[in-house]
Amino acid sequence: MEVLEIRTTKRVEVVDITDKVEKLAGGEAVLVYTPHTTTAIVLNEAESGLLKDLLNFLEKLVPSGEYYEHNRIDDNADAHIRASILGNSVLIPVFNGKLALGTWQRILFLEFDGPRSRKIFIKKL
Amino acid sequence: MEVLEIRTTKRVEVVDITDKVEKLAGGEAVLVYTPHTTTAIVLNEAESGLLKDLLNFLEKLVPSGEYYEHNRIDDNADAHIRASILGNSVLIPVFNGKLALGTWQRILFLEFDGPRSRKIFIKKL
Amino acid sequence: MEVLEIRTTKRVEVVDITDKVEKLAGGEAVLVYTPHTTTAIVLNEAESGLLKDLLNFLEKLVPSGEYYEHNRIDDNADAHIRASILGNSVLIPVFNGKLALGTWQRILFLEFDGPRSRKIFIKKL
Repeated sequence: MEVLEIRTTKRVEVVDITDKVEKLAGGEAVLVYTPHTTTAIVLNEAESGLLKDLLNFLEKLVPSGEYYEHNRIDDNADAHIRASILGNSVLIPVFNGKLALGTWQRILFLEFDGPRSRKIFIKKL
Repeated sequence: MEVLEIRTTKRVEVVDITDKVEKLAGGEAVLVYTPHTTTAIVLNEAESGLLKDLLNFLEKLVPSGEYYEHNRIDDNADAHIRASILGNSVLIPVFNGKLALGTWQRILFLEFDGPRSRKIFIKKL
Repeated sequence: MEVLEIRTTKRVEVVDITDKVEKLAGGEAVLVYTPHTTTAIVLNEAESGLLKDLLNFLEKLVPSGEYYEHNRIDDNADAHIRASILGNSVLIPVFNGKLALGTWQRILFLEFDGPRSRKIFIKKL
């Protein structure tokens, strides 16, 4: 298992990790997995307007300022809920030794409770 | 890796691809993966009323007519966001050479920006 | 393939199945998969306030009392839609024979149409 380390710079942010994962490709499929509970990983297009739309949508869907029970302990229930909706991993098939990504597919790491140092586990299957 | 090709016929549509995937089952698990960024794959029941409910729910959640930054480039931000919420793949265990699907589980391909020709990658692990 | 059996006790409920899955860990990664269409599996923190927040959020997002087409057949469209959003499986990398879970990650089984007996498939890859 390989471990990528990244540093996020805002509370909420999207980081395109495609290039870093591509260097580690191999096997039959690659699991890209975040062990954190306030981050997510999805495959989608990295167009800047779209990433704003996605973050705006999530802010409306799970507002950061609302009352949550969990916030008595830690002020980040919104981050946990957003992470649960999007999922913490993607599994990408490998073809001829390379990630079989579609034309517009990028591997997007979503930070919902940064800025922090984050690890991403990469496992070849 | 096998590639299924399907043709969708509407902008938003659900296609049950279970029978096509079952013919390709093998290994320990089967990854069913869309390389497109405006489609999704989920496992759920294919009852016609439920599929309408799911599409109605998604239209309310991520309305197609709303303002999105991405729509300056391409009029389909709603499709990308819906795809990100539902996910682009499912991984199905194989038992005795067959997909270990539950009684009501069907493999559903969701088109959010059709009609188009679409590919689906099938990888035995 | 191993099969876990659990009994849920409410219509909507979260069950932490981490300890049961950990006993079955092995291989390169472990697929934790529900074959039911009104349940979900996610990885997140099991703090009691957060779990209430997550269930409250889902009740607001996909209300149980609303009109759905599917409810002519079975009064549980909300459960199917919630399950579709969260996903029916997680894939966890194995490191040194153990699940490579993050500090706060727990394997959460979400029941949306209980109480029922439920099966969970565990497959080592």
